[in-house]
Amino acid sequence: MPASKGYAAQSAQSALAPFAFTRRDPGPTEISIDILYCGVCHSDLHMARNEWGQSIYPLVPGHEIVGRVTAAGSAVTRFKAGDVAAVGVIVDSCRHCTPCERGDEHFCAEGATLTYAATDRVDGSITMGGYSSNYVVDQRFAHTVPANLDLAAVAPLLCAGITTYSPLRHWKVGPGMKVGIVGLGGLGHMALKFAHSFGAHTVQLTTSLKKKEDALRLGADEVLLSTDEKAMKAHEGSFDFILDTASAHHALDPYLALLKQDKTMTLVGLPEQPPVFNVFSLITKRASVAGSMIGGMPETQEMLDYCGQKNITAEVEVIPIQQINEAFERMLKQDVKYRFVIDMSSLK
Amino acid sequence: MPASKGYAAQSAQSALAPFAFTRRDPGPTEISIDILYCGVCHSDLHMARNEWGQSIYPLVPGHEIVGRVTAAGSAVTRFKAGDVAAVGVIVDSCRHCTPCERGDEHFCAEGATLTYAATDRVDGSITMGGYSSNYVVDQRFAHTVPANLDLAAVAPLLCAGITTYSPLRHWKVGPGMKVGIVGLGGLGHMALKFAHSFGAHTVQLTTSLKKKEDALRLGADEVLLSTDEKAMKAHEGSFDFILDTASAHHALDPYLALLKQDKTMTLVGLPEQPPVFNVFSLITKRASVAGSMIGGMPETQEMLDYCGQKNITAEVEVIPIQQINEAFERMLKQDVKYRFVIDMSSLK
Repeated sequence: MPASKGYAAQSAQSALAPFAFTRRDPGPTEISIDILYCGVCHSDLHMARNEWGQSIYPLVPGHEIVGRVTAAGSAVTRFKAGDVAAVGVIVDSCRHCTPCERGDEHFCAEGATLTYAATDRVDGSITMGGYSSNYVVDQRFAHTVPANLDLAAVAPLLCAGITTYSPLRHWKVGPGMKVGIVGLGGLGHMALKFAHSFGAHTVQLTTSLKKKEDALRLGADEVLLSTDEKAMKAHEGSFDFILDTASAHHALDPYLALLKQDKTMTLVGLPEQPPVFNVFSLITKRASVAGSMIGGMPETQEMLDYCGQKNITAEVEVIPIQQINEAFERMLKQDVKYRFVIDMSSLK
Repeated sequence: MPASKGYAAQSAQSALAPFAFTRRDPGPTEISIDILYCGVCHSDLHMARNEWGQSIYPLVPGHEIVGRVTAAGSAVTRFKAGDVAAVGVIVDSCRHCTPCERGDEHFCAEGATLTYAATDRVDGSITMGGYSSNYVVDQRFAHTVPANLDLAAVAPLLCAGITTYSPLRHWKVGPGMKVGIVGLGGLGHMALKFAHSFGAHTVQLTTSLKKKEDALRLGADEVLLSTDEKAMKAHEGSFDFILDTASAHHALDPYLALLKQDKTMTLVGLPEQPPVFNVFSLITKRASVAGSMIGGMPETQEMLDYCGQKNITAEVEVIPIQQINEAFERMLKQDVKYRFVIDMSSLK
C-alpha cells in the first residue's frame, strides 16, 4: 500500500500537524497522483474543527488537488504516468443512479464520497484529503488540466471554480443580463471572473469599499456597497440573477430587493447559521432562493477546459504546508487575496 | 357620495364593531357593488391587529368580495346593473408599468392598491374593505362569476383560490407530477382541490391525522403525516413541487427533503416569523424556496372561469357579521372548515 504523509487534525480542538498514513493500492480504473498543489477551502477549516458535526479524526483536509500521475491502472484510458490530473470535492459515487448516469455525481442518490472524512466505497477506509503527498482515485473522478494554465492557480478551480461556474451556467448567465455577486473571497472572485467572462453585466456587492479596485480589475462592471441604502435603492428590481458566495451570516432581504420579478438568488456560501429573510421579500415578486454545490464530473471538466480557453485561474497566495494553521486564522479574518494554495513540495 | 356601513377595528387592540363611512362616487370606468358575501382571510386578522405594522385605522377588513352590481359608469363594458361581480385583494395599480401591461397588476412596479387600509389612487382616501355593505371599483379590478357556482362559496376564491391556483399554474403542476400541499386550512384546501383537478398525484402533508378523511374527500391521493419520520423518509426525494400554505411557524427542512433535484417549494402562507431552513437542504439538490402571492387580473378571471367549468368552490361556514370577532378567535385555533364567509345581509 502506498505510503502517504500529510497534515491532519487529531481532534476538533487540535491544530493541523504532520501525519503519516497509507493509501490503498490503485485498482484497474484508478490512478495514483503525486500532489503538487492543494487549495485551502473554508470547508477545510469547518471540517478540521467539526463545525458541521460530521468530522472523523484523524482528518486530513484538502479537496482542491492538482498533481502528477505516477501510475495508471490497466483499464485507465484518460491518463498516463506523467500527466497532470486534478481532483475536487468528491472521489466516488454509486455510479448507477439517475443523477450519476447523467453526470450529476454530486447529487448521487446514495450520496457521493467526499475527498476526505468520508467512508471509501472500495475498502471502507476513511478518505484522507489533499493536504498530503499523494492520492489514489478512479479516473472518472479525476480531470485533465489545460497545459497553458499555472498549476498552483488551477487548484482552487476544483472547488471554488466549479461551485460558482455551475450555478452561473445552470441559471444561464450571459449577455443582456445584470448579475450580482455577493462577497469577494475565494468563491466570489471566481464568480466575478466567470460572470464577466460569460458576458453578463456583473455587479460586485460588497460591504467594504476597500475591495472596489480589485473587483473592477477582476471583472466587475460596477461595485455596489450593500451598506449604502441609497445606492441599493437605485438598483432595486433590476437584477436577473444573484450568486451569494458570502460565508459570514447576513440577512438576504437587501439582496432579494435587487431582483426582478421571477428571478433567483442562489446561495453557495455556507454560513454556520441558517439563512434569514422575510417571506414578503419572496412573495412580492415571486422570487426564489436556491442553493447549489460544486458540479458533476462532466461539468467540472467542461469548466477546466473553458478556463484553458479563456485563460482563467484563481488569484492565489502560495504557502508551504508549515503555514497552514496561520493560513486558517488569516482566512477567518478574510486576510487572503483570494485563495491560499499549499505548495506540496514543502512536505518533502 | 354613497353611504356605506361595515365593521371596523378602531385600533390594533379593539374588536371589530359597526362603523359608518362613505365611498367615493364611481367614475366612468367604475362599478358600484352591493356586497353579498365576504370571505374571512387570515390576513384580515393580521391587519386588524396590525401584526404586519402597516395598518391604518379605522380599518374595515375584507378582500374576498362577491356582490351585485348596482351601477356601472358610462365607459364600463364588462358589467351592467344586476350582474354578479367579484373583487379580490387589490383594487388598483399604476396600470402602465411592464408588469401591469402584461396583467401582473399584483407585481405593479409602483405598488398595487390593496382593497383595504391602502391609499386610494383616485381620491387619496384610505380604502375600506369588504366587511361592509358596498364597494366602488374600476372594472379592470372586478371579475365576472360563473352562473353555476354558489356565491358564498365563491368569495374565498378571490384570495385563497387565486393564491393557490397561480403558483400551481406557474410551476406547471399537472399529470405525471407528485405534488405536496403543506397545511389544510383556507389556502390548503383550495390548493388540494386545484392540484387534484390539474391531474397531479396530490399528497396532503399535515401534522394532524384528524384531517385525513377530509383531505381524501377534497382530492388528496395520499395523506402524509409530517411528524411520522419513517413515512417522511420513504417519500424523500420524490416530489416535483410543494406548495406550503401553513400560516404557523414551522421548519422547512422536512419538506425540502421530499423534493427531487432542481425542484421548488413555494411559500404562500405568511407566518409572523421568517422561514427557517438549513442551507444544506437546498444545496444538496439545487432546490429552491420561492414565494407567491395572489395573481394578476387576467389570471384571477381565468381561475374563476376554470372553477365554473370544473364546479370548484371553497368549503365554507357562513356566518352573520355579528359573529366576526368570535370567528377570528376560532380561526386562530384552526377551528374552521375551511373558510368563514360573512353573509352581508346580516348587516341590514
